[in-house]
Amino acid sequence: MSIETIGWHKGKLRLIDQTELPGKLKYISTDDVNVVWDAIKRLAVRGAPAIGIAGAFGVAVAALKSRAKDCDALKNDVIKAADYLSGSRPTAVNLFWALERMKAVARSGRAENCKRMKQFLLDEAKNILKDDKIRCRKIGENGERLIKEGDGVLTHCNAGALATGGAGTALSAIFSAKRKGRKFTVYVDETRPLLQGARLTAWELLHEKIDTVLITDNMAGQVMKEGKINLVITGADRIALNGDVANKIGTYGIATLAKAHAIPFYIAAPVSTIDFSIKTGGEIPIEQRDADEIIKCGGKRIAPGNVRVYNPAFDVTPSHLIAGIITDKGFVTPPYGKKIPGLGER
Amino acid sequence: MSIETIGWHKGKLRLIDQTELPGKLKYISTDDVNVVWDAIKRLAVRGAPAIGIAGAFGVAVAALKSRAKDCDALKNDVIKAADYLSGSRPTAVNLFWALERMKAVARSGRAENCKRMKQFLLDEAKNILKDDKIRCRKIGENGERLIKEGDGVLTHCNAGALATGGAGTALSAIFSAKRKGRKFTVYVDETRPLLQGARLTAWELLHEKIDTVLITDNMAGQVMKEGKINLVITGADRIALNGDVANKIGTYGIATLAKAHAIPFYIAAPVSTIDFSIKTGGEIPIEQRDADEIIKCGGKRIAPGNVRVYNPAFDVTPSHLIAGIITDKGFVTPPYGKKIPGLGER
Repeated sequence: MSIETIGWHKGKLRLIDQTELPGKLKYISTDDVNVVWDAIKRLAVRGAPAIGIAGAFGVAVAALKSRAKDCDALKNDVIKAADYLSGSRPTAVNLFWALERMKAVARSGRAENCKRMKQFLLDEAKNILKDDKIRCRKIGENGERLIKEGDGVLTHCNAGALATGGAGTALSAIFSAKRKGRKFTVYVDETRPLLQGARLTAWELLHEKIDTVLITDNMAGQVMKEGKINLVITGADRIALNGDVANKIGTYGIATLAKAHAIPFYIAAPVSTIDFSIKTGGEIPIEQRDADEIIKCGGKRIAPGNVRVYNPAFDVTPSHLIAGIITDKGFVTPPYGKKIPGLGER
Repeated sequence: MSIETIGWHKGKLRLIDQTELPGKLKYISTDDVNVVWDAIKRLAVRGAPAIGIAGAFGVAVAALKSRAKDCDALKNDVIKAADYLSGSRPTAVNLFWALERMKAVARSGRAENCKRMKQFLLDEAKNILKDDKIRCRKIGENGERLIKEGDGVLTHCNAGALATGGAGTALSAIFSAKRKGRKFTVYVDETRPLLQGARLTAWELLHEKIDTVLITDNMAGQVMKEGKINLVITGADRIALNGDVANKIGTYGIATLAKAHAIPFYIAAPVSTIDFSIKTGGEIPIEQRDADEIIKCGGKRIAPGNVRVYNPAFDVTPSHLIAGIITDKGFVTPPYGKKIPGLGER
């Protein structure tokens, strides 16, 4: 049984509060756009696809609560809510993509009154969620063959069910390979500072009874050197037209180490992660996060309180380090420059 | 004022309990060899040179407490204590080197009675400590010129005063460059699982008023890519004749990343860190440590309790990734095969 990271229940958006995992499985139920903004900001919901879905429902709950008397006023409230939500995380493009879909509904003129427009908006959020489940399944189908019997697979951060509306991206490929009956071992980087690997990915993999080994981030080079790793798969937060990929901090280092060990490094992400407006990863803004995330671990201060900290949440992996990108619309390999633009047209 | 990691006070060995840093500066005072063994095992004292000094004093306190009636019986007690202490950590060679020095005193036949032999043993431990202070100073003198005005220096784990009897190894070079009036920034990897970088190195650098930036281990690649790093310096736990170096887990990954970014990677260590009995790093045993070190952080469980863990305490960096080794007897550069054996003869 797969876990439900995001759902719509009894007129409210329900999210797993991922900051409490793996200790507690706690839910947030809300019809308040501010609570959704805060859940995205503090990573109670995280992972590029899941952020997009949460953002869409955030717009929907704002619309449902709106006191606008006509469609124009409601449209303005929708645009306001979308703009507000877009400020919660700057790097993941799926959020902007989902918010654009919601704004397009409000702008379409399809609804004859506010009640209908509210219904259309809620339906659109539900469709984004439903589509994401399908996209995850397709990523799994397109990626599973990369994982062979007996392989060691390294993954970073969390690109699983907890990052999406479905079975995940990188983990969907892993889950699909498992369902094909193959046996393999997944090495999980703990992914400091927020430990999504240790807290979330290890939890998901064990839930699916996959052989899982947890390591610290600085052990990636060593497990590669020892021959334990046959391939690396991670998710993505934004992909440029040339195949450069923004993903959780540390991804670039792993991709560089993989190259040095001649290990293929793959990205798994839905086409909604591609930013068709940017040519290279150099155009992707990198979110800088609070020093406390590094100065503390497990809630405890672990460093001198007055130390300076550098805390980029993401890095950009240049396309020449990426052996292939697994999407819901197929598996693409270098050269990406010609193939990625085409994915938007399928 | 430099901190005193290890000292002999009022008939007892006094150690900083480094597991309590940076929160508390707490000391362990003991004349019990079991307490010394435990302090080494649980990393209350750590860093290859400091472990060697603690081991020497461990033999000395065991000898001082011995009820042996003659020199032969005392010699046997010394050998027993040294063998016992050698099992506390398997990778750092300085420990075995220091224990050999203590056993050599017992075997020398210099002492005419037990009382004299006990005095000789205590003197030898004090000499090992005193010599280490001098070695640290010389490493500083031999390494400081590598750090230029305005540089960014990356270091890993703790190779400072807390790792030695003096000013440190890698950090001694940094402290010497500071004393020359140069301004630069030191980037410190936090060094999971035991966070020696965040807890100890950041604390030491701030104590010496050096511009310090703390990062998580998985950010090393990113700060290199951004051009923030001009050189890397780390300590070493054991060096083979061909220049392969065992050091804290993560060192190999950093050295590989440094190579990919054309950044020089240096090792700083006393000649006592060289194992003249081994040709390559392949002969160095790598200590595997407890799963709880990874499953917990800051004392709190951060991963599912039933997850498998891989926890090597060290890795081996092949000599071809090392631009130079700074020792107390000079700075050596590749090819190491001919130069390292010569260091033992100076």
